[in-house]
Amino acid sequence: MRIMGIDPGYGIVGYGFVEYDHGKFTPVKVGTITTPSDMEFYKRLRVIYLDMQKLIEHYRPDEIAVEKLFFNTNITTGIDVAQARGVTLLPAVMMNLPIYDYTPLQVKSSITGYGYAEKKQVQEMVRSMLHLANIIKPDDAADAMAIAITHGLSVNTRRLMEKYDKSINK
Amino acid sequence: MRIMGIDPGYGIVGYGFVEYDHGKFTPVKVGTITTPSDMEFYKRLRVIYLDMQKLIEHYRPDEIAVEKLFFNTNITTGIDVAQARGVTLLPAVMMNLPIYDYTPLQVKSSITGYGYAEKKQVQEMVRSMLHLANIIKPDDAADAMAIAITHGLSVNTRRLMEKYDKSINK
Repeated sequence: MRIMGIDPGYGIVGYGFVEYDHGKFTPVKVGTITTPSDMEFYKRLRVIYLDMQKLIEHYRPDEIAVEKLFFNTNITTGIDVAQARGVTLLPAVMMNLPIYDYTPLQVKSSITGYGYAEKKQVQEMVRSMLHLANIIKPDDAADAMAIAITHGLSVNTRRLMEKYDKSINK
Repeated sequence: MRIMGIDPGYGIVGYGFVEYDHGKFTPVKVGTITTPSDMEFYKRLRVIYLDMQKLIEHYRPDEIAVEKLFFNTNITTGIDVAQARGVTLLPAVMMNLPIYDYTPLQVKSSITGYGYAEKKQVQEMVRSMLHLANIIKPDDAADAMAIAITHGLSVNTRRLMEKYDKSINK
């Protein structure tokens, strides 16, 4: 199964495609969509939408995993990140791809076993799980890959639980 | 000039098309896009996007006026409204239509002259300016029309100010 992980934003959208097969992760493509800060906000949405469309058409993910938003600090930035998040996901929505939301806490705890792990620890675990020589740069791309891996691990857990349910219901 | 006013949301998106010519407003079409509350959130975004695309292709507005979001109460609903707002505007963004944001305060004060006017007063003024027999229903559609009118009035003000600037700079 091919998973696309997304770290939403309007200045930088991180993305990571990973192939997940029998508990093994293989990186396919990782990167960012960036929009210039002096570009009008709605034009930035256009860039994000078109780039997302191209990425999905090219790398054909089966499922999408994306960071869930929550705000308590900067509400104004938050509104724009949320608007961009809707637009970012729209190409996947239009292609009927299943979309799964994960909180940063879920990502950290599924990857390191500890919900309050440092960013560096998460990045190091992602590097190790993907058998990479170096950690992924920039942070937004690394975060997107961490979300994709989190989804893979959660699919795995669901499958194991279904098997267990079947075995005890025999 | 044809203006489309939009009151963003994900359960109900209000919209209103108005023809604005030499200080006179003529209503063209007013209504709402609604999505069922038991529909998955991302599927609701799909409905909104497709309906907005059809509306814009059919009624061909020259400019878009939309309510600016701001949140202090329910952040979770706010995030979803913001995601929907991005998706709602995307068809207009893709067609390169100019988009103008107005706060509820700007709408109320430009239509009634008082920023803290009651909803009923705004609706009554909108009815009167459009020479309608009854106020527009539901509220979301009336709000959208109020935003469209606000944009028309602001265009008018800008033109008058440009004329004034030219006359004093002669």
